[in-house]
This record gives sequence, C-alpha cells and structure tokens, in this order.
Amino acid sequence: MTATYGALCEHGYTDLTAQAIADRTPKSKSWLFYHYDSKDDLVADFLGYLLERFERRLAEVGDRPPAVRLATFVDWYFEEPADDREAFHTALLELRAQAPYDDRFREQLRESDDRLQATLESILDDGIAAGQFRDHDTAEVAKLLLTTLDGARVRQLTVGRSTDLTDLKGTMIDRVIDDVLEDGVDYPVVEEGIGTLEGTHG
Amino acid sequence: MTATYGALCEHGYTDLTAQAIADRTPKSKSWLFYHYDSKDDLVADFLGYLLERFERRLAEVGDRPPAVRLATFVDWYFEEPADDREAFHTALLELRAQAPYDDRFREQLRESDDRLQATLESILDDGIAAGQFRDHDTAEVAKLLLTTLDGARVRQLTVGRSTDLTDLKGTMIDRVIDDVLEDGVDYPVVEEGIGTLEGTHG
Repeated sequence: MTATYGALCEHGYTDLTAQAIADRTPKSKSWLFYHYDSKDDLVADFLGYLLERFERRLAEVGDRPPAVRLATFVDWYFEEPADDREAFHTALLELRAQAPYDDRFREQLRESDDRLQATLESILDDGIAAGQFRDHDTAEVAKLLLTTLDGARVRQLTVGRSTDLTDLKGTMIDRVIDDVLEDGVDYPVVEEGIGTLEGTHG
Repeated sequence: MTATYGALCEHGYTDLTAQAIADRTPKSKSWLFYHYDSKDDLVADFLGYLLERFERRLAEVGDRPPAVRLATFVDWYFEEPADDREAFHTALLELRAQAPYDDRFREQLRESDDRLQATLESILDDGIAAGQFRDHDTAEVAKLLLTTLDGARVRQLTVGRSTDLTDLKGTMIDRVIDDVLEDGVDYPVVEEGIGTLEGTHG
C-alpha cells in the first residue's frame, strides 16, 4: 500500500505501471501480481485501504465536541497541500475520472462517499443532541457540505488558485455552517496537524 | 471541433488518438496535424471553442429576468444527462484531471472558470439592481455556487446516483439561494430545452 501511494505520487494514475509499484517493494513484480490480478485490482484495494486510514484518523478526534469535529472535517479539505499530498490528490482525481469506465473503482468510491456522508451526519446529529447545533435535516446539510468540499478540492487541483480557497471556506462557513450553529456557538479554530488525515477523494 | 467532440464521446480523453479525430472528418490525419502540433494542441483549442459556445447560449437568455437567468445557469448543472452528454462530460473530467500536468489545459480551464464566475456575478449584480435579490457580496456567492455546482457534476459522474442530485439541488436552493432572493421572489421553474447549453467543465 505504501509502494502504491509512492508510485501514484511519482507517476500519477494514467502513467502508473505495475513495475513502478514493484520497484518500491523488496519483492518482484511477479510476486506482487501473484496476489493481485491486475494493476487496477491493486489500486481498487488501495482505495479501500485509504478509507480505513481515514476512519482511523477520524476516530482519533471522536471524543471532541461536535463543533470541533465538524471544523476538523471541513478544514482538512481546505488545507494548503504539501507537494507530496498535492501529487497524491492529483493522482486520485485521475483515478476518479476513470470511475465511469470501471465498476470496481465506482463501487469503492460509492462506499467511501457513503461513509464520509455517515460520518458527517453523525457529527451533525451529535451537535444537535449536545445543543450546539440547531435542529436541521442533517442528511441534507451533510450532502451539501460534502459536495461543496469536493468541488473545492477538484477546483484547487484543476484551476489551482489557493487564495480563492481561503475565501471560499469563509463563505461556506458564513452562508451554510453558521445557519446550523446555535446562537453563541462559533466555528472553532482547529489546532494544526489534523491535516495528516488522508482522504479517499481526489 | 465536431469531430473532436464525437471522438471524445466515443473514446474518452485518455484513449483519444489523433486518428480517431481524423476518422470523423473528410480530411487525413496529416492534413489535420498540419494545423495542430499535437493532439493536445487540438484539445486545448477545443476547450476554447466550448467556452465560446457556452457564452453564445448564455447570451440567448441575456434579456430574461435575473432570477430566470440564475435558475437557467443552476439547472443546467443538474440536468439528467443524455448518454452522449454523459460520455462527453466524463471525457472532460478526464481532461481536467490532466490539467495539473498540462499548462495549456490549466490556462484554458482558468479562463473558463473566470468567465463562468463573471457571468454568475453579473446575474447576481443585475438581480440586486432590479430589486429581486438582496444586497450581498456577489463575488463570494458566485464562487460558492460554482464550487457546489462543480462538485455536484463531478459526483454525478464518479459516484453517480442521480436521485441524490435532485435532493442536492433543493438543499442548495433552500440553504444558499433563498438567502439571496428578496422576500416574495421565488426560485423560478425554467422551461425545458435550456439543457442544450454545453459547458466547459467536466
């Protein structure tokens, strides 16, 4: 999985070869593909691995107040990417662009999406239960937020003007999230380092 | 340009060849590439052509009330795509995924994005001037809407559950657009056929 990550960062998805992955392991290409039927089999498995990693990281902030968990989730999409991370998300976007042609990728992306949606919904539900968020349709708001966050990431990669990204985050907080927060609850500032969360979306 | 459109629908971007484009014209591949240095040169030019087409179509609704123009712009992203259109947008998404590797694509996408932003801003500005929309930061709201619309399209292609798309549109209207409309102004229902607008984003 680490070899696949490294090879994706270096070559992107379109130019990824089985050899490039094998070169990053102490094993041979034939050993690797004794375990996987094809490069795309390995890559589909890698998507599952990313989802597990993402969920482990989110579990680490599971005991914080709902507003902090919400801000952690949101801020993670708006972080200025390090070189490696940008290369990686660029490769993931290429891979997502192949999903319409590949059922396995599509299935994996749907599962990731369902789980991201469930996570965000449960943060919003917990916020209502804790009296920090107003009562609202959490499924609806979670979907709207995910769509905007996803659009923000794709635009960051393909149009790539990061000052816009900061403005956009502010607008999203003012115009969508503030309506959800109870009076007197502010959108929290999250400490650094949460950006090590790795997602499953490009 | 028509040949490029057809070839992109049939083959996608990754598998697009100069020959596949030439096969759709009465001319030879060598004739075609007397005019273009490479396949990607032709494709970059095609992006410019899409933008011009999009602007011509938007100009056709330029004399309608601002709320109708806004709904026209928004609805265009939420339309259930015909087969051909879905294939085309899938190819555009592949192409966008190459933008981080290709300066010409990135430049074209930036220009498209700037013009979409300017168009949406001018619709919002006109709405304020006409007393249909509340006074608001139109640059901010235009960016938020574009980002959500862009995310919606990418999700439609890569996760592909169109019932979600209808719900999402409703949520976006309720939670973002309604705040912009003056009391008594409703989000209008736009007549069919506006979907022939073709955009420049995947």
